Amino acid sequence: MSSYKVIYYNNRGRAEAIRFLLSYAGIEFEDFRFESKDDWPKYKPSMPYGKVPVLEIDGVKYSNTLAICAYLGKKFNLNGSSDLEALQIHTAAAFVYDLIDIVGDVLYGYRFSFTEESYEKEFKKLFDETIPSALEKFEKIVNKNDGYFVNGKLSWADIFFASIFESIYGICAYMDIELKNDLLENYENLRKLYEEVRNIENINHWIAKRPETKG
Amino acid sequence: MSSYKVIYYNNRGRAEAIRFLLSYAGIEFEDFRFESKDDWPKYKPSMPYGKVPVLEIDGVKYSNTLAICAYLGKKFNLNGSSDLEALQIHTAAAFVYDLIDIVGDVLYGYRFSFTEESYEKEFKKLFDETIPSALEKFEKIVNKNDGYFVNGKLSWADIFFASIFESIYGICAYMDIELKNDLLENYENLRKLYEEVRNIENINHWIAKRPETKG
Repeated sequence: MSSYKVIYYNNRGRAEAIRFLLSYAGIEFEDFRFESKDDWPKYKPSMPYGKVPVLEIDGVKYSNTLAICAYLGKKFNLNGSSDLEALQIHTAAAFVYDLIDIVGDVLYGYRFSFTEESYEKEFKKLFDETIPSALEKFEKIVNKNDGYFVNGKLSWADIFFASIFESIYGICAYMDIELKNDLLENYENLRKLYEEVRNIENINHWIAKRPETKG
Repeated sequence: MSSYKVIYYNNRGRAEAIRFLLSYAGIEFEDFRFESKDDWPKYKPSMPYGKVPVLEIDGVKYSNTLAICAYLGKKFNLNGSSDLEALQIHTAAAFVYDLIDIVGDVLYGYRFSFTEESYEKEFKKLFDETIPSALEKFEKIVNKNDGYFVNGKLSWADIFFASIFESIYGICAYMDIELKNDLLENYENLRKLYEEVRNIENINHWIAKRPETKG
């Protein structure tokens, strides 16, 4: 049995997808969270590529949410039944991941600094255009694939999607953003998929036991 | 034999990594380029997730540079010799890909609009901090791994890295940005790896025969 340790801030953010997948597979993992954001510089030099989340597997550190989730998805038989199906699953997850990127960029000023005026403009664009336009595409795809992103069956892209929305809701709550409506409200298939993943027994257990955090 | 068609703008951009990998494997592919950027809205509705590059394999469209390259990398035996090695290769490529994301965001205003003042600030940060700090990490990693990103042997991450820098140089040329120095000048191992990949016979042939484009 391998040992697993997730290393991240004390929030859902970009680590929750990894925690969801490990939980799905019923794997016990150490859920290491920095006590404070100020602790990060202390840890940064020992992280590959200087970034978190990191997943330690048997003491070796691996990095990047999407890469780690693709690895775990394969390991837990959530990667389709052919290489081309695996490609479609990876594609779906990559486009879902783009959303947390842009949400982080706009709401946290993760990579760019905005003036007050440009922040307002980007904020409006994010919630009025970028997110709805991506969700519209996802909704069509999930509708066409009998409720899942790829080929009518659960894959790591579906679990990834649900966890990323957990994190996006978290970021909005952390930033005290009152959403006019639930982001998924108008997307019946996505809403259903989100709930379905959260209701998978092992994931449901994880949600019940994880630390309550904003963000 | 499968048939391959790359669909993208008439530049290197996010498609060149796919073209590099197909060329590496000696695969003939149709290199479809929109005649003009204005043609994009005409094609957008038929693209999965509404984005390019797209790789058509036997008439089926697949999307997302990183996902496509991971698929091709595996197919062409450039994905390491274990799932954990494949994870490290994927991780390297993902962090390399982050650079073209941020270069596109700053120089093309790909996702955000900047004021003249904030553009200047982001431009400076990009070339003085973001790119050097990433390259410093990559240089250490490649130095530690005998000239490659992972485990001392050529993988799709190395080809990906070289092609992404081809594209970044292209974007800089397109935007008439005179780089004070070659971006890779101070990174001996990266510079060498970049040249080594370009000198692989099949890739070298591709570079010689591809359309000359700015960007």
